[in-house]
Amino acid sequence: MDSELPALLVLGPPMVFNLFQSHYSHKYRFLNAFSSHLPLPQFLQTQQTHPSSVRAILCSPRQPVTADVIRSLPSLGIVATTTVGADHIDTAECRRRGIQVVTLGSQFAPDVADMAVALLIDVMFKISAGDRFAKKSIHFKPWSFPSGSKLGGKRVGIIGLGRIGGQVAKRLEAFDCIIMYHSRNKNPSVSYTFYSNVVDLASNSDVLVLCCPLTEQTKYIVNKEVMLALGKDGIIVNVGRGALIDEKELVQCLMKGEIRGAGLDVFENEPNVPKELFSLDNVVLSPHAGAITLDCFMDACEHVAKSFDAFFSS
Amino acid sequence: MDSELPALLVLGPPMVFNLFQSHYSHKYRFLNAFSSHLPLPQFLQTQQTHPSSVRAILCSPRQPVTADVIRSLPSLGIVATTTVGADHIDTAECRRRGIQVVTLGSQFAPDVADMAVALLIDVMFKISAGDRFAKKSIHFKPWSFPSGSKLGGKRVGIIGLGRIGGQVAKRLEAFDCIIMYHSRNKNPSVSYTFYSNVVDLASNSDVLVLCCPLTEQTKYIVNKEVMLALGKDGIIVNVGRGALIDEKELVQCLMKGEIRGAGLDVFENEPNVPKELFSLDNVVLSPHAGAITLDCFMDACEHVAKSFDAFFSS
Repeated sequence: MDSELPALLVLGPPMVFNLFQSHYSHKYRFLNAFSSHLPLPQFLQTQQTHPSSVRAILCSPRQPVTADVIRSLPSLGIVATTTVGADHIDTAECRRRGIQVVTLGSQFAPDVADMAVALLIDVMFKISAGDRFAKKSIHFKPWSFPSGSKLGGKRVGIIGLGRIGGQVAKRLEAFDCIIMYHSRNKNPSVSYTFYSNVVDLASNSDVLVLCCPLTEQTKYIVNKEVMLALGKDGIIVNVGRGALIDEKELVQCLMKGEIRGAGLDVFENEPNVPKELFSLDNVVLSPHAGAITLDCFMDACEHVAKSFDAFFSS
Repeated sequence: MDSELPALLVLGPPMVFNLFQSHYSHKYRFLNAFSSHLPLPQFLQTQQTHPSSVRAILCSPRQPVTADVIRSLPSLGIVATTTVGADHIDTAECRRRGIQVVTLGSQFAPDVADMAVALLIDVMFKISAGDRFAKKSIHFKPWSFPSGSKLGGKRVGIIGLGRIGGQVAKRLEAFDCIIMYHSRNKNPSVSYTFYSNVVDLASNSDVLVLCCPLTEQTKYIVNKEVMLALGKDGIIVNVGRGALIDEKELVQCLMKGEIRGAGLDVFENEPNVPKELFSLDNVVLSPHAGAITLDCFMDACEHVAKSFDAFFSS
C-alpha cells in the first residue's frame, strides 16, 4: 500500500472498476469499501485511513452515496460515477457542501440512443420474437411469422429531449418518424412539437421513448393514465430509469393488451424484474446494457480518471 | 364464375393473395392454379379457359414463372409479383416477348432497409441474445451480459446501392456510421467511397449489408474469400436473397468465429435453413420478414391492382 498516492474510496463498485483499477493502480490508493461488510468508519480504520483524509469517491448505482456517507467524510471534494444518471448520489447534499459530482455526461448519449432505437425497432418489427420463432421451428416457413409494422411515419413522443433524447430524435428522423417531445421546458432550437403535458403527448404518439433523468418530478411520469392515452397500438421504450414508469401498471397494460409492446433496458427494482414480462412476446428486455460496450467502458474510465486528475492536481 | 371479368392466373400464391382476392374479386376472375396439382394446361381445361385467353399472371417466389409457362400462354402480356425481386420470373423471356414485368419497385425499400438496420443493430448490440438471456435468468443481473459494441464510427460496406441500399445508407449515417459501397457502377450522385471489388470492400468494412438483386453475376458475391477479408470482427447482414452468400461457407465462418455475426432475413434454399444457425448466439434470423407488415401488404395489393387495371384498360 503506497500511502503517498491519493485515496479513492470505491463504493458499488462500478462495472468498469476492474478495468479502472488495472489501469490506474499506479495513481491511486483504492479503498475498496464494497468488498467489506464493515460499516464505513470501521472499514476505514482497517485501512489505517482517517475519514478526513478521504477526498474522493468512485461509485455506481449499486450503492447510494447518501447524505450520511457524505457527512462522514469532512474532506470529500469529488464524487464520480461511471453512469449518466446521478440519482444514487445525494446531489443536493453535495451542492450544499461544494462537492463536485462527475457523471458520464454526453459521451454515452449516442450509445444509449442506439439502444433506444434498437429496442423500438425490435418491438416494432418483432425481431427477437421472430428470431425465437425461426430458431425453434422445425419447419422454418418464410413469411409465416405474424407481421410487425412500419417505422416510417410513426409519431414518436420523446420524454426528455436532452443529450440522449436529441440523439434518439436524430436517428428516428432518418427512419422518417415524426418526432414530438415533452421536457421541463420547450426547446427553442428544435422544430419538433412540444407538449407540456405527458398525457397529451401520449394521446398524439404511437411510441413513447423515455430518456429523462429520474427525479422526484419524473417518478412515474408514465402512469396508467399515460399508458391508456397511448393506447392499444402504442409502444413504450425505456432507456432512462425504471421508476420513470409505474412498472406494476405497465405489466398489467402489457398483459391485457392495453398497450402493444415495450422495450425495456431498465427496471424499477433492479435486479428484480417482474417475472410476468419473461413470457410476453411483445416485450423485449435488455439487461441495462445501454452503454456497456467495451468501447464505452474505456471511455468511462478515461473520463473519470481525468476528473480525478484535475481534482487532485488543483 | 363471371366470365366477363378478365382472368388472372395465380401462381405461388403471393402471401398477400387472400387480401388481394377479397378486395378485387369484383374485378378479376381468379384462376388459382396454385391450389391444383394438375399441370397448367389441364388445370386451365378444368376452368374452361383456353391458354390463349390468359393475359395476366400474379405470382410470388414460391413458384417460378419459367420460359415454359410463358410460352404456353401466347397472349400473356403482364406478370406481376408482390416482391421487390423478380428472380423467380424468366425476365429475359418476358423481354423477348414484350411482356410487362411488374415488381414492387421502390415502395418497400424503406421497410427492407429498416429490417437491414434492425438486424445489424440486433447483432451488434446482442438484443435478441440479451432478451433471451434476460428472460431465462432466474436472477436477472443488470450489466451481467457480455457487451456488444458501438454502432457509431463503424465502416459499413453496402453491396448494391439501389433503392434499398440508399435507404440503408441514409439510416446508418444518422448513427454516425461510415458508408462505403460496391455496385455494378459507381454512383456519381453520392460521396460514399466506391469499391469495384467486393474483397477490397470487405477488407475495409466492419459490416457488409447485402441489398442487391440476385442475378448470375451476384450469386455467391459473398464467398469465403470475402468473409475472410471481412474478418473476425465483421458482421454480415443479408436482406437481398439467400444465394448472394455461399451459405455453407457462411455457416462454417460463423461457427469457427471467422466472422463475428450475421443477421439474415433470407436463405439460400428457403424454406430450408441450416440447422447449425439455430443454436448460434451471434446469429439473428428473421423469417424473410423484411416487408411483411400489414401496411406493406395493403400497399402491395394496391400497386399490383393498379398495374393490372392499367394493363386491361389499355
